[in-house]
Amino acid sequence: MRVLMIGDIVGDAGRSALQDHLPRLKRTHRPDVILVNGENAADGRGITRTIAREFFGSGVDCITLGNHAWDRREIFDFIDDEPRLVRPANYPEGTPGNGFARLALPNGELTVINLMGRTFLSTLDCPFRKADELLAEVKGPVLIDFHGETTSEKQALAWYLDGRVSAVIGTHTHVQTADERILPGGTAFLSDVGMTGPYDAVLGMEKELVIKRFLTQLPVRFEVGEGRTQLNGVLLELDPSSGGARSIKRIRIDDDEPWFE
Amino acid sequence: MRVLMIGDIVGDAGRSALQDHLPRLKRTHRPDVILVNGENAADGRGITRTIAREFFGSGVDCITLGNHAWDRREIFDFIDDEPRLVRPANYPEGTPGNGFARLALPNGELTVINLMGRTFLSTLDCPFRKADELLAEVKGPVLIDFHGETTSEKQALAWYLDGRVSAVIGTHTHVQTADERILPGGTAFLSDVGMTGPYDAVLGMEKELVIKRFLTQLPVRFEVGEGRTQLNGVLLELDPSSGGARSIKRIRIDDDEPWFE
Amino acid sequence: MRVLMIGDIVGDAGRSALQDHLPRLKRTHRPDVILVNGENAADGRGITRTIAREFFGSGVDCITLGNHAWDRREIFDFIDDEPRLVRPANYPEGTPGNGFARLALPNGELTVINLMGRTFLSTLDCPFRKADELLAEVKGPVLIDFHGETTSEKQALAWYLDGRVSAVIGTHTHVQTADERILPGGTAFLSDVGMTGPYDAVLGMEKELVIKRFLTQLPVRFEVGEGRTQLNGVLLELDPSSGGARSIKRIRIDDDEPWFE
Amino acid sequence: MRVLMIGDIVGDAGRSALQDHLPRLKRTHRPDVILVNGENAADGRGITRTIAREFFGSGVDCITLGNHAWDRREIFDFIDDEPRLVRPANYPEGTPGNGFARLALPNGELTVINLMGRTFLSTLDCPFRKADELLAEVKGPVLIDFHGETTSEKQALAWYLDGRVSAVIGTHTHVQTADERILPGGTAFLSDVGMTGPYDAVLGMEKELVIKRFLTQLPVRFEVGEGRTQLNGVLLELDPSSGGARSIKRIRIDDDEPWFE
Ligand SMILES: [Fe+2]
Ligand SMILES: [Fe+2]
Ligand SMILES: [Fe+2]
Ligand SMILES: [Fe+2]
Ligand SMILES: [Fe+2]
Ligand SMILES: [Fe+2]
Ligand SMILES: [Fe+2]
Ligand SMILES: [Fe+2]
Repeated sequence: MRVLMIGDIVGDAGRSALQDHLPRLKRTHRPDVILVNGENAADGRGITRTIAREFFGSGVDCITLGNHAWDRREIFDFIDDEPRLVRPANYPEGTPGNGFARLALPNGELTVINLMGRTFLSTLDCPFRKADELLAEVKGPVLIDFHGETTSEKQALAWYLDGRVSAVIGTHTHVQTADERILPGGTAFLSDVGMTGPYDAVLGMEKELVIKRFLTQLPVRFEVGEGRTQLNGVLLELDPSSGGARSIKRIRIDDDEPWFE
Repeated sequence: MRVLMIGDIVGDAGRSALQDHLPRLKRTHRPDVILVNGENAADGRGITRTIAREFFGSGVDCITLGNHAWDRREIFDFIDDEPRLVRPANYPEGTPGNGFARLALPNGELTVINLMGRTFLSTLDCPFRKADELLAEVKGPVLIDFHGETTSEKQALAWYLDGRVSAVIGTHTHVQTADERILPGGTAFLSDVGMTGPYDAVLGMEKELVIKRFLTQLPVRFEVGEGRTQLNGVLLELDPSSGGARSIKRIRIDDDEPWFE
Repeated sequence: MRVLMIGDIVGDAGRSALQDHLPRLKRTHRPDVILVNGENAADGRGITRTIAREFFGSGVDCITLGNHAWDRREIFDFIDDEPRLVRPANYPEGTPGNGFARLALPNGELTVINLMGRTFLSTLDCPFRKADELLAEVKGPVLIDFHGETTSEKQALAWYLDGRVSAVIGTHTHVQTADERILPGGTAFLSDVGMTGPYDAVLGMEKELVIKRFLTQLPVRFEVGEGRTQLNGVLLELDPSSGGARSIKRIRIDDDEPWFE
Repeated sequence: MRVLMIGDIVGDAGRSALQDHLPRLKRTHRPDVILVNGENAADGRGITRTIAREFFGSGVDCITLGNHAWDRREIFDFIDDEPRLVRPANYPEGTPGNGFARLALPNGELTVINLMGRTFLSTLDCPFRKADELLAEVKGPVLIDFHGETTSEKQALAWYLDGRVSAVIGTHTHVQTADERILPGGTAFLSDVGMTGPYDAVLGMEKELVIKRFLTQLPVRFEVGEGRTQLNGVLLELDPSSGGARSIKRIRIDDDEPWFE
């Protein structure tokens, strides 16, 4: 089972970059399933129904989210109708939407779970225990998008779940890490998959604005950056029966790393 | 000017990994200068005089630090005597030690500055303005070890200094990022160089203990992990006259990426 | 039902202040039950078995705790044997000790619950939902010691529970607030009851050391302050059948407010 | 020199409460100077030119601010023209507006300085050092509005400045503290003066909305509360020549403490 996961799509630039590269990524890697993190798809903050449909129309099978899930209030109007749009599962009981999706694929079922870290983020339910709870009811390959700020929380969760899930792939920092590996128990891990969108920007946002906020400590409204783009993702090969990971490979496409193999 | 910088050395395991790989790294890459971040060298917390001497004795030219600089109180006894041991420059005026070092090399002088981010870390002086202040008095190649938690602060500082320093290399997260590049103005950038030490651990610390703290939220004393090790670094080629970066190359050595080129 | 609650006892100085004033407080107010917060009783950090016994020996009926509960590791040896020593109830399941105590009094039973806020503190279970859960099984008067950093979380919990508990009394900031009131539903509220211990200090700790840490941002080991002391508490009159609060009165004793009536 | 300082005025309700009580406060206490914190005056976030004029028209001599100073963008249009509107002085150099005001009174000059804490707030310049710097150039009575989150930072600054300023009065938590005192060196201190505005609310904001945010961890837009109001302030008597504090007295007006003497 070949899984292509693409990191936080930021604004128009990110969606363009996805459209630019997705056909070739499909041809080259022939993924069985395509996942994207969409929490920043609408001008950098949240996602709309139109954008979600655009992603699904392009061949995306599942959209995960994160702390920015709720930035566009219209999400409350459609998240309950869209089982392939997944918000962090460790929001408290009663939160709209689903925390995981079961994707039926030709060669089996893949469960995609979204969890969010708590360090320097929201005070949600414990992601470790929420994973235990969800995994008690799931069979087959499981991929976790762990949306978190700190490397310690991400590594800790991956080790905690090693041998129990196919992969723990981090999102949220918007920077791809170079620590891809398969843990001894068979779980693929990458601290962060990185983002997709403006390349000459700060996490996808106009760099002058971000610098201004750091310098002045005054409120500055961020805008999505312009110009050159990047795409960051990861390609996983999972054993459809055991759920174990066979391989993990980072994907980075930008002007400094123009293509890959 | 070839610069080899090696990320946060964690405990005995990290120091062993350094000793294991440094001779071969020297032979292969023939660096003009070797830098290490040593804030975790003494059992994961701080550094001692003996360890600093050990590093210098192995061919290290300069040791940078970070938020853990002061964990071993003996540092206050020797930091003022060791110009090649550098703590974050944006600690307030009057802080013991130096915030930068000037290293005389065969082909010119390299200035190494240590700065620390403020987001989710200590409330120090502004690292952007401190950089401006230090750069006003420096000529030639400059490398900044920017010790910080968030990718936004690291990217913002790198863009802010693009064209004014040779390189901004992040430390502190203990996970190497895959975003190495040379910015348009000629500054090499990597969000985080990663750590050197235990490989089957959480940021170098015994993984069961870190998991326990996340699960219980109780105080747990961390210990440096055991077993297999990793080394993470970066290799830079700088123009000794202009100070511009010619190339940046990540180095990762562990059992999953056993050697490199 | 008359309840006397005394805020965070800090170190030897706090315990002396308690011994100095408790006899007179008993004579004057004739409380049916005496509660103290003991998280800082052992040199400012945690509590020992000996100190807990000392409190009980002086007439204290119940000791509540907070984020410093675990600072003295010996607590793990005795907390499970002492039903009148209460740690925050919203620590995750499996945490040693009890989150509440049921105190049999001549005129009925008082339930004392300890909860901890999450803003700028530990990432525990939701204190609002934990309160709901505990209250579902309790009858009669209930007092909550809500150990929290921010005024917003404390006020929000008090309003959330108004009419369902007898009192929500805050601890942790070590400064008594002047906002005592009975909410419309009958719940007595005080954002923080304040501390008991050194008066010429910062939260009970030697002031020069705290100032030094703010100025230098370096690690400084705090010590409990010396000299003059203060005691801060609150006196509540509860209806033993309805559980509603009839009155709430702050107690502050120090050299600037030497006695009270 | 009699100083009346009134805490964070929240929205329309806060401004009404001020108008309701100010005439009587003037008659009763005959203050030489009236200060208000106005950071929440415009619907709970920021201040407008119209509101600032309204305050000055009512007899207010100086308006201090805090972290919400900039919430209404129009402040950038008028803050430089209004010397009696003071924002935290430890914003970085180049920030619009003034960090202090010199008020000429019949019996001498009063300097009002606004500073902001850094713990759990913005990463500004060090408030301790900024105070030193400003005090080097000031003679006569000085009052500091120290806008901060934590009691430790507020107490530490007060002790640091004891004997060098007339008063350190905290703002920001919106809850009045009961720790008013004159420190040994002659500086009056109160950790927080409290707020002015809705009484049946959470820090002045509609309580159901704040509770909803705590329960759901979802974005909730806060609105200023309605109904009954409160006013909180402090009355100081300063020696106009030495600058030392002669007395400090809290003022709390609400339905539970309907008037005072
Ligand atoms: Fe994102
Ligand atoms: Fe995010
Ligand atoms: Fe480190
Ligand atoms: Fe660090
Ligand atoms: Fe305490
Ligand atoms: Fe506490
Ligand atoms: Fe305020
Ligand atoms: Fe504020």
